[in-house]
Amino acid sequence: MGKTDLHELRKDPLLGRWIAVLSQQKSPSDYVVSADADTEKSCILCAGREKETAAEIMSLPGRGTGWSTRVIPHFSPVFQIEGELGRKGQGMYDKMNSIGANEIIVESPEHSLRPEEMGLEQMSKVIVTYKARMTDLEKDARLRYTLIYKNSGRDSGAVFSHPVSYLASTPVIPKRVKEELDGAKQYFAYKERCIFCDIMKEELRVSSRVILETRHFVAFCPYASKFPFESWILPKRHSCVFQDIRQEEIEDMALIMSVVIKKLRAAIPHLSFNYFVHSAPNRIPRQDHWHTLGDDFHWHVEIMPRLMRTSGFEWGSGFYILPTSPEYAAKYLREV
Amino acid sequence: MGKTDLHELRKDPLLGRWIAVLSQQKSPSDYVVSADADTEKSCILCAGREKETAAEIMSLPGRGTGWSTRVIPHFSPVFQIEGELGRKGQGMYDKMNSIGANEIIVESPEHSLRPEEMGLEQMSKVIVTYKARMTDLEKDARLRYTLIYKNSGRDSGAVFSHPVSYLASTPVIPKRVKEELDGAKQYFAYKERCIFCDIMKEELRVSSRVILETRHFVAFCPYASKFPFESWILPKRHSCVFQDIRQEEIEDMALIMSVVIKKLRAAIPHLSFNYFVHSAPNRIPRQDHWHTLGDDFHWHVEIMPRLMRTSGFEWGSGFYILPTSPEYAAKYLREV
Repeated sequence: MGKTDLHELRKDPLLGRWIAVLSQQKSPSDYVVSADADTEKSCILCAGREKETAAEIMSLPGRGTGWSTRVIPHFSPVFQIEGELGRKGQGMYDKMNSIGANEIIVESPEHSLRPEEMGLEQMSKVIVTYKARMTDLEKDARLRYTLIYKNSGRDSGAVFSHPVSYLASTPVIPKRVKEELDGAKQYFAYKERCIFCDIMKEELRVSSRVILETRHFVAFCPYASKFPFESWILPKRHSCVFQDIRQEEIEDMALIMSVVIKKLRAAIPHLSFNYFVHSAPNRIPRQDHWHTLGDDFHWHVEIMPRLMRTSGFEWGSGFYILPTSPEYAAKYLREV
Repeated sequence: MGKTDLHELRKDPLLGRWIAVLSQQKSPSDYVVSADADTEKSCILCAGREKETAAEIMSLPGRGTGWSTRVIPHFSPVFQIEGELGRKGQGMYDKMNSIGANEIIVESPEHSLRPEEMGLEQMSKVIVTYKARMTDLEKDARLRYTLIYKNSGRDSGAVFSHPVSYLASTPVIPKRVKEELDGAKQYFAYKERCIFCDIMKEELRVSSRVILETRHFVAFCPYASKFPFESWILPKRHSCVFQDIRQEEIEDMALIMSVVIKKLRAAIPHLSFNYFVHSAPNRIPRQDHWHTLGDDFHWHVEIMPRLMRTSGFEWGSGFYILPTSPEYAAKYLREV
């Protein structure tokens, strides 16, 4: 490799992480993903088998007497709603009870509906369901954070072949979220501007990493992506909490989520991915009460394709190698 | 599950990460690992094919005219030794050239030698090789950090079936290392003691998470392990840099590394794991120059079994679920 072929290191402005973008680009067809071996046609989460699960937490109405989305307690919850926090020391260490919530958000009564085929109406209902659960759970003073996430495809950690998302409420702010909050706070302290608003402006100005812009949202491949084809979706209106989303924004979010997922699966058939919503922790005073608090965080969605196998290097260093640059990925996704 | 079965949350005292220890324990036989499908009997890294690789960086003598360990440049380096750092801004972002070193440490001329069968003499030579490379690379003022790591087994990210470790020198301190340094510094600022020394004392006092103690080292499963059967090896003598290791400590380290790896592979046949050495960054003034600097970090080895598949939950939260407690894992490893 000649000197002109030096790989490039890029710094994640939010987390301070460095990543390496390789100079020779891998195209989508260089990633080989095999199809799911799933042969199930129905499962306990399908319409008609509601009595076999625990009592539902909520549901949205569907056609006739049916439901369109449905939320039930997780079958084997890690975080349990009943009990005391019981925070205490153990020698030099700290522990507490695993209080919280673990819910399954059934995204459709149909077993084989893929997220890329879901359609805007159903995707909107899924987002409405997310909002309703987040709004309900933030009332519980024991819970500091609620994470909404989805596993889709064989390598994503998915357990059900039925379309589901998950919700996990924890009595502590998870480390990854804390890091984002701290990074955004540090930036705000220096610039007196929201880092996410700045990133969005920069991405729209440069445009090479933008996948899609809608009325209320921007989707782009972040400058220092951890994985190839990583995609972020940011709302244009600054708000620290997802559950403040408005009805017209919900419809627009359904549109941009659908299109980006469709593009990802068109670029790389059978692609496994995770997505998650990063919102501010509970009990953060809102903008209307304390003006500056909440100014430094901006809720968003991160879509994380699972194309890479991590080694001791990634685990030992927290340093990631990117064989497809965000510019290449975004260009491909714009055009596909 | 009754109220008595609440899972437990534990805080990692170094990184501030919380993890959940499940109340129902998975035993080693609950983890099914299939054997490597490797059928190769020799490769380019074997004795006799030295001319097919790039010129060796160093080697240790072996029997006759042969070598026992050998270090060569990586076949497709991410970090390259030649060039300028060229650190600069790009819009609101920061980047630089991927300067550094990427080396393959060939641990033996024998193709099929597994780490658990390596024997003390060969393992000592591997450690001597690590030390020599670390000592050499810290002289390069452009390099801030050198990570030694190993991938072993099918799910570890291993590329070669020949026994190898790797070395990656980076012009920045990797995020994961920075987090450890910051955590240790914070603890030192509060306690005026090294957190690793304190952890080691606590583990020896409690003893339930200790796997093995030798003259110069302690191996234990950390209180807030990220993965089941995670094992750390700490030197008893406080030192921030691995390359200050003494000859008698090298032999003892070979012993404890060999025994712990043997135990892990006996507990879970074909277990894939990564290990890495965490040492202080380069150009940190040593203890003899500035007394307090270097007092707050303590080099160590982390062995990370690859038994769990991560989902959107782990990626989105940085929160890990531990189906086997460190106490259970350590008890099993002590006895196996």
